[in-house]
Amino acid sequence: MQSPGEAGPVMSEALARDVVKEIPPKAADLSAWYTAACLKAELVSYSPVRGCVVLRPYGFGLWENLQKHLDERFKATGHENAYFPLFIPESLLVREAEHVEGFAPEVAWVTQGGSEKLTERLAIRPTSEAIIGVMYAQWIESYRDLPVLINQWSNVVRWEKATRPFLRTMEFLWQEGHTAHASAEEAREETLRILELYRDFAENVAAIPVYVGRKSASERFPGAVETFSIEALMPDGKALQSGTSHDLGQNFAKAYDITFVDADRAIKHAYTTSWGVSWRMLGGLIMVHGDDRGLRIPPRMAPIEAVVIPIVRSNDDRAVEASRATAERLRKAGFRVRVDERDAQPGWKYSEWDLRGVPVRIEIGPRDVDAQTVVLARRDRERDQPGQRQSVALAELPGTLRELLEDIQRSLHSQAKAHLDAHTFVAPDRAEFFRLCKERAGMVDIAWCERPECEAHVKAETTATTRVLRALDEPAAVCLVCGEPAKVRAYFAQSY
Amino acid sequence: MQSPGEAGPVMSEALARDVVKEIPPKAADLSAWYTAACLKAELVSYSPVRGCVVLRPYGFGLWENLQKHLDERFKATGHENAYFPLFIPESLLVREAEHVEGFAPEVAWVTQGGSEKLTERLAIRPTSEAIIGVMYAQWIESYRDLPVLINQWSNVVRWEKATRPFLRTMEFLWQEGHTAHASAEEAREETLRILELYRDFAENVAAIPVYVGRKSASERFPGAVETFSIEALMPDGKALQSGTSHDLGQNFAKAYDITFVDADRAIKHAYTTSWGVSWRMLGGLIMVHGDDRGLRIPPRMAPIEAVVIPIVRSNDDRAVEASRATAERLRKAGFRVRVDERDAQPGWKYSEWDLRGVPVRIEIGPRDVDAQTVVLARRDRERDQPGQRQSVALAELPGTLRELLEDIQRSLHSQAKAHLDAHTFVAPDRAEFFRLCKERAGMVDIAWCERPECEAHVKAETTATTRVLRALDEPAAVCLVCGEPAKVRAYFAQSY
Repeated sequence: MQSPGEAGPVMSEALARDVVKEIPPKAADLSAWYTAACLKAELVSYSPVRGCVVLRPYGFGLWENLQKHLDERFKATGHENAYFPLFIPESLLVREAEHVEGFAPEVAWVTQGGSEKLTERLAIRPTSEAIIGVMYAQWIESYRDLPVLINQWSNVVRWEKATRPFLRTMEFLWQEGHTAHASAEEAREETLRILELYRDFAENVAAIPVYVGRKSASERFPGAVETFSIEALMPDGKALQSGTSHDLGQNFAKAYDITFVDADRAIKHAYTTSWGVSWRMLGGLIMVHGDDRGLRIPPRMAPIEAVVIPIVRSNDDRAVEASRATAERLRKAGFRVRVDERDAQPGWKYSEWDLRGVPVRIEIGPRDVDAQTVVLARRDRERDQPGQRQSVALAELPGTLRELLEDIQRSLHSQAKAHLDAHTFVAPDRAEFFRLCKERAGMVDIAWCERPECEAHVKAETTATTRVLRALDEPAAVCLVCGEPAKVRAYFAQSY
Repeated sequence: MQSPGEAGPVMSEALARDVVKEIPPKAADLSAWYTAACLKAELVSYSPVRGCVVLRPYGFGLWENLQKHLDERFKATGHENAYFPLFIPESLLVREAEHVEGFAPEVAWVTQGGSEKLTERLAIRPTSEAIIGVMYAQWIESYRDLPVLINQWSNVVRWEKATRPFLRTMEFLWQEGHTAHASAEEAREETLRILELYRDFAENVAAIPVYVGRKSASERFPGAVETFSIEALMPDGKALQSGTSHDLGQNFAKAYDITFVDADRAIKHAYTTSWGVSWRMLGGLIMVHGDDRGLRIPPRMAPIEAVVIPIVRSNDDRAVEASRATAERLRKAGFRVRVDERDAQPGWKYSEWDLRGVPVRIEIGPRDVDAQTVVLARRDRERDQPGQRQSVALAELPGTLRELLEDIQRSLHSQAKAHLDAHTFVAPDRAEFFRLCKERAGMVDIAWCERPECEAHVKAETTATTRVLRALDEPAAVCLVCGEPAKVRAYFAQSY
């Protein structure tokens, strides 16, 4: 049995050799590059179930890091985890009218259990507001019971025809927070607290720069009073909604009868929120950071921070022992490290770990063994770029590696930020606005009237929609599209 | 917003006051005690979905600790996590004949997606051998790809009429490991490695003493060559199977076509294993350790290791500040601590935290503030028992608390071990064997022939079955039940 952290049975070598060749250039066809990168880096496999993918160990490692960082943040802000049933009886799902209208076309239904035909169909949760609302109605009695701050990590199902790893699948993994409060103000505060938490995670862990703000009415969660989101920009100029936080007002509290006796003894409906991030965020991470050689994973999200590759010369395999010892030392210092001892050429291994996006490669050859050094190669730079490889004395390895990982984390964020900045446009006039939207130039920023008809018109002409709205800076501005008085500034973009 | 770890909105006080009164004595009616304890300690709530319970935050805290400890052990033995689809197309599920026969009566079926009626029904996974088998067949090509060592944390569904929190529910949370190996020996080694890992977790984390061994043919997992399990003894004399590890031989590899090219270039079927622990283990923990005052949670599993209760006298609320400071200091030292600042009598709070099984209560009153001391009360002892409460100087608190928690962990295990020992009987003769089995005396140990007819006879007469089998100590022994030559020693018991 292999020791933990050592190179495991990753893929058969013949297969892997083909693989590295097969990734198409990213700029030529993002979609083809994306699918190839997800499959060849062994993040996911397609499954025999239409619309469902398998999250393989390396992909699950990404998910575990997302979970760890978000979960810490949820707990630090007073939230607790819980688990609610997968099934929602049809009669409960339909109680909130807008909600069921929004989700009904996407629901998978259980109609048979063992040999029994059910008298009432059970929905597989597309989201859990309904079942959680029923439970909160039971649990909450007094204002002293509020706030209730609960999160759930779970699978959900939405019936989809298309399959695109992480971005569009029938079943997906996510977290959904559900909170209840005594006042509208507290619910709004919670909604915005989580929005900021998501922004912080996206920027500082996933290294994805985002725009934050509220959504237009047409982009709102079914049943919400207001939806807020974080929006990232993909290399093809399309936006990816990467996390949403909903102020549900009293809509769900009224539908599911969540009431409490307030300090003034009056019986009132609670104010609720819900918010979620799914494995879609991983899709964003892959698209934003990857290059023609494959993934580039930000160190804080990387299942493997550094891979050690021994370079064995004929009759000299001291590098293997040195690699093991180095990896062991780094593990003890808290790094996530693997040694690749497979019987293959170093160059082939470099390509494979490049493909999988490991931030740092540590090369150890016989000369390094003699000199008590190692070579560090950073994945975020091109192979011939200055500073891409450096020799480091063994004694200084942990400190240098720590700094290098931090630098890579920063560098990936700033590359992505430069892309977002370069593809954000303040549209000077209506014609240019339509052109930028149609040509998928990026995030197009205008003063906007906030009228649904106006948004529908833009969508019909360009397929772009509003991504997030924010406060107007000039009170007298008019909508760039229709000339009516502007109410907000809005980013428009085509989106996933 | 409350700070993390502080007393949250646990339950309305009026409700809680009723609650503490309502738990029936454990010895009189274990089943009534168990249900009341699970509900009143807020581990679970019944849901509006038949057969499904909600795992509330306090119950989920137990589950998180189980996950943490098992997951560490899985990773330390080279396993990685992954995630496979919830749905299994019917045509895949039926490929292993015994397997489908065993599970078909318990399967929930999706027949409709959105407005589309499905041409093939989708099973909601009752266990994932089928879907994982199909994927392993795709992933494994060469002996170099082996072993594959994967675990999944997931929900599964088995159609059940009865509902008993943790012990019997339609949907439950579990982990399922699935491994593939090049030889029968390696698969058997893995099966036994996991059995030992489960034993270690049960004994040293959950503080539940268990018997380990293989199962009889009738108790085997459908499709397995051999099943092994850990078996705990409940206070009512019934056994609880608490974790199983299956050697699947080549049965599933043949059904799902998992082959590899071996070093000798021959194409061979792999040998697979599967193994699982579910939230059922939490049911065992509750029954084994609880007493008439409620839960007693072993410290390593406790969501809250110590609760700090300030005792406020009129015009003297210095205890509140001191409690917060003490809790903060303990948190920094790595303890899981809460402060209960609610507006209620200390005695009422003591009862409530006793009910919830928090291992240590820290009382801080005005006199303690003056003397720079606190009082520690341990949950594992009776209220009037010597050493149940002790005064400790603040300066020594972290060290003393650490030792106290370790002592409580040991003490709960040894109390449970004493119960298991006292209720394990080597049956002297056939009549006594039948009496012990019928009367649910505990684990009844005999030399046994291993014949299914003999086991069926015992079951018909007493409702007891074999729990685990182990090697015979006297080769010439005969079966205590039927007089045929004995092949093994067996523990018989009634079981959950």
